[in-house]
This record gives sequence, C-alpha cells and structure tokens, in this order.
Amino acid sequence: VRTPAENAQLALLLEVAGTPKPGNVDREREYPDLRFEHFLAGAVGARSGLERAAAGDPVGESFRRAVEGMSDQTGGNTHFGALLLVTPLVRAAVDDDTGGERDTDRGLTPADAEGVVAGTTVDDAAAFFRAFEHVDVAVDEPPAGMEPLDVRQGAAAVPALRERGLTLADVMERSADRDGIAAEYSRGFPRTFRAAEEIAARSGPVTDRAAAVFLGLLASTVDTFVVTQHDAETAAEVRRRAAAALEGEESPEALAAEFVDRGINPGTTADIVAGGLFVALERGLVV
Amino acid sequence: VRTPAENAQLALLLEVAGTPKPGNVDREREYPDLRFEHFLAGAVGARSGLERAAAGDPVGESFRRAVEGMSDQTGGNTHFGALLLVTPLVRAAVDDDTGGERDTDRGLTPADAEGVVAGTTVDDAAAFFRAFEHVDVAVDEPPAGMEPLDVRQGAAAVPALRERGLTLADVMERSADRDGIAAEYSRGFPRTFRAAEEIAARSGPVTDRAAAVFLGLLASTVDTFVVTQHDAETAAEVRRRAAAALEGEESPEALAAEFVDRGINPGTTADIVAGGLFVALERGLVV
Repeated sequence: VRTPAENAQLALLLEVAGTPKPGNVDREREYPDLRFEHFLAGAVGARSGLERAAAGDPVGESFRRAVEGMSDQTGGNTHFGALLLVTPLVRAAVDDDTGGERDTDRGLTPADAEGVVAGTTVDDAAAFFRAFEHVDVAVDEPPAGMEPLDVRQGAAAVPALRERGLTLADVMERSADRDGIAAEYSRGFPRTFRAAEEIAARSGPVTDRAAAVFLGLLASTVDTFVVTQHDAETAAEVRRRAAAALEGEESPEALAAEFVDRGINPGTTADIVAGGLFVALERGLVV
Repeated sequence: VRTPAENAQLALLLEVAGTPKPGNVDREREYPDLRFEHFLAGAVGARSGLERAAAGDPVGESFRRAVEGMSDQTGGNTHFGALLLVTPLVRAAVDDDTGGERDTDRGLTPADAEGVVAGTTVDDAAAFFRAFEHVDVAVDEPPAGMEPLDVRQGAAAVPALRERGLTLADVMERSADRDGIAAEYSRGFPRTFRAAEEIAARSGPVTDRAAAVFLGLLASTVDTFVVTQHDAETAAEVRRRAAAALEGEESPEALAAEFVDRGINPGTTADIVAGGLFVALERGLVV
C-alpha cells in the first residue's frame, strides 16, 4: 500500500500525464520553456516536503519545503497550486489513520480536510508567504486594504501577517472569491472531492479519466489562474469552449492546440484534478 | 540539489517519457495492460528502496525493497532491470560524496560503480533472488549446471547460493554473456557511462536526448530482453532496423508502432538509458 506522500506524488504525475487537457502541459503538449520533463522533476523534488506533512510537520512549512524542492528545475512554477491543495489533504489522510492500517474503504473525507485547515496557525501562514520566494507565481494585485499582505513580498509580509494574527485559514478565506485553491480551503474542498468521485466512477486508464474530469471541471467553472494570467473575458471564453468540447461541438485536441498557442494555461483546474486524484488514490483507486 | 535517490527516481521518469523509443512504452505509446501510468506508479513505489541504498543499506536488500515498492501497481514489471542497474550506482554516488556537498563536477565514475559491485556479498545475492518473488520477470532457462540457481525459484534458490558462497557480483558474472544488465555489472558499466556522456553531449529537451540515445544503443547492440522474450533472430532484426532508422532509412515513429504491435519490447536498452540518465544527472545534467 502506498503512503499518503507516495499517493500525493503519484497524483501530481498522473495529472500531468492526462491528455488532452486544453491549454495545459500534458504528455503530448508542452511549451518550449515549460516542458513535460519539468513537471516530472517538480514532482520528484516535491516529495520530501509532502513526506514532512505526512510525518506531522506543520502544514505551512511542509508546503514551503515541497515548493522549494519542486523549484529545483528550470521550467519555473510547475506545482505551486497543486501542492497548496494537496499538502493539507496529505495531513488529513494521516490524521485519518487511527492506528494500524489505513482505512481505505472509508477513506479521506471533506471533514478530515476541513479539520486540518481549521487547525492552521499564523506560522503556517508565514511559511506560505515564504514559499513565494522559491518560484515566480502569477498572482493578482491584492484587494484594497490588503497591500501589506501582498504575497509577492514573500517573507517581507510576515510582520504584517503576525500583527494581524492571521492563520493560513484566514489568509485563504480572504482570497476565496478570486482564487480557486483558496476557495477549496474555505469551503470544504468541494470541487476536489467531486473530482475524486468522478475519477473513481469512470473506468479505463486513470490518465484518461483525469483528462475527462479536467474538461468537465473546465466547462463548469471559470479558471481563476486564467483570470490572473489573462482576464475575465478570456477565462469566460475558456469555460464556454470547454463546454462546447464536452458537448462534441469542438475537438478537445484542436482546443488544446489552440490554447497552448495562445498561452492559455488553466492551471487551477489542473490543480483541482491533482487533488481529486490524490483523494481517489487514498480511497483505493487502483493504478 | 537533488539527492542521489531523487536523481534515480527522476531518471526512471525521464526514461519512460522519451519518445519515440521503438517497442517500449513511452509517452505516446502503451500496451493495453502495461501503460504509461504503471511506469509512473512504479517509479513512485521504487523510491523508498533507492533511499535505503543511499542511506547505506546493503545493495541487494535495497534493490529488493525498490522492486517490492515498484510492484505496487497492476501493470507488472516496469523497472526490474532499471533498478538492478541503478541501485549500485546510487550507492556509488553516495560513497563518492566525501563529506559536504557532492562533487558534481567530477561526478560518478565507472571505478566508483565497480567498487560497489566488488563489495557485494552473498546476502546481496540472496536479496536479488528474493526480489523475483515480487513480480513476474521474463528470464531464460538457466545454463547447464546452474539449475539450482534458477532465479525463477526466488528465495528457494538461496540455500544453493549460500552453499556455493556466491556474491551478487559472482551471480552477475555468470550471466554476463546473455544478460545486458549483468554485463554492465561485470564490465564496469561501459554502456551506461557511454549513454551518460551522449546524453550530456546532446542539446535540447532531456527526454528527446534520451530517445535519441535509446535508438543509437538499440542500433549498436542486440537487446538481451528481446532475445529472452522472443529469440535471437528477432533481436537481430530489431538491431538492424534500429540502425536503418538511425540512418534515416526507416521512420522511428513507424518502427515504434510496428514493434509495439508485435509486442517487441527492448527493455534492456531502456534500462541502460535510465542508468545513463542517472549518471548524467549526478554529473550535473540540468532539467
């Protein structure tokens, strides 16, 4: 039986191997400077941080270490969002193990994950800010009044964070309406667990299931990473055209080629699929 | 800087991601029951055994644990040969670390690797035999007089091994003329280190370099796994046609499709590429 850290690493690898995933790097599509091999190296480097989370280290610092390890490749940001989503889930999977063998029948629940988020501290938030120093992450301007907590400052924002006494849960709450990963933290990981259920309910190769669930998620909700990298209009177009592809009105392969050409990279949706794969693996999905 | 165990895991992943690699599972080709995702899961499961080798556990037992972890997926044997090749190299990379930071300039040498092989014991050989109990590996009938040491017996062969006092180096020596991995153990890993040099000398994406070096190796020497799975004639044809592909007389893509159709799977050549990738990464290859 794989450990939670092993399942998390496998989830990252299965996610990027699914194809076609319109706009994202996958097994058959890559950007000249952000290639499939960078995602492989990112997943290799992330594992030791994920193992810290499983061993009981604080979620924030484990996440920071995972990002540090992930960054030891030249493609840039490969898994920041996926690791932010998966790290508390790894911890929840371990907390869920009440002695002896893991209960893969019952598996990880949203309540387990919410418990981990609720238990985060100001130190976890500080480590989250420090993680931004390891790699360039595309983020928006902070909302009015939140400038002292602009994540782009990295560790320089930590004093403001401590002064306000904000935990990682608090920081996520404040971004939940404009960031898809923060929304998962704040609302009990609804899309992650739904993705896990859909992956488990489908049949066939796991990477094909992941790609199908990706397209469904992309068609159902605007990708916040596309909003950040481009604008709300582009994100709305992505959602609409993914829905058309889902209905068979567009070819997913052609859509994938076009989005890559235009540099449209629905990263948050990919992160949710990675989280869903992790939950499904913890609940006994066979590879 | 990645650890030797991380580099070994990354080498396994980069190897399978290279395409086209006539006959082998790669990023674009798979068999219905042996898929790309099985190789991802195999590499995830192998890592803890590779970490044991890096931590100083005996080579044989570390290899057995890596195979045990690798086998926790439903595709069957994904990395037996690659792990057999890479495990002593991981140990050599650690022994090479004389305190403090690794000397990636000088890097791992054939002499380091030969030293590890020379130091193997009867216990290492016993663990090697036990590793065959975790997964079905295609192997030939043993040569005359070697029946008591048929690896297919697994642990049942260990008493005969102890009686004869054979180390892992001795066992490999006895198979060196018919098994490409055993030949590497017995001859100072010549093809592995040559592959590492070629990978480092090329430019472009690492997975493309790996695929190119694979084709060159396949064209230069008969793949012993093809001999075992099929026969000497098929293996000779594979070598000849890989050479034609290398000369531009055949399309590598068409050759890949045909070999997959015919179930021709030059696994030993892939193992050598994985070993070469590991050595290249240890010597500073950037991903």
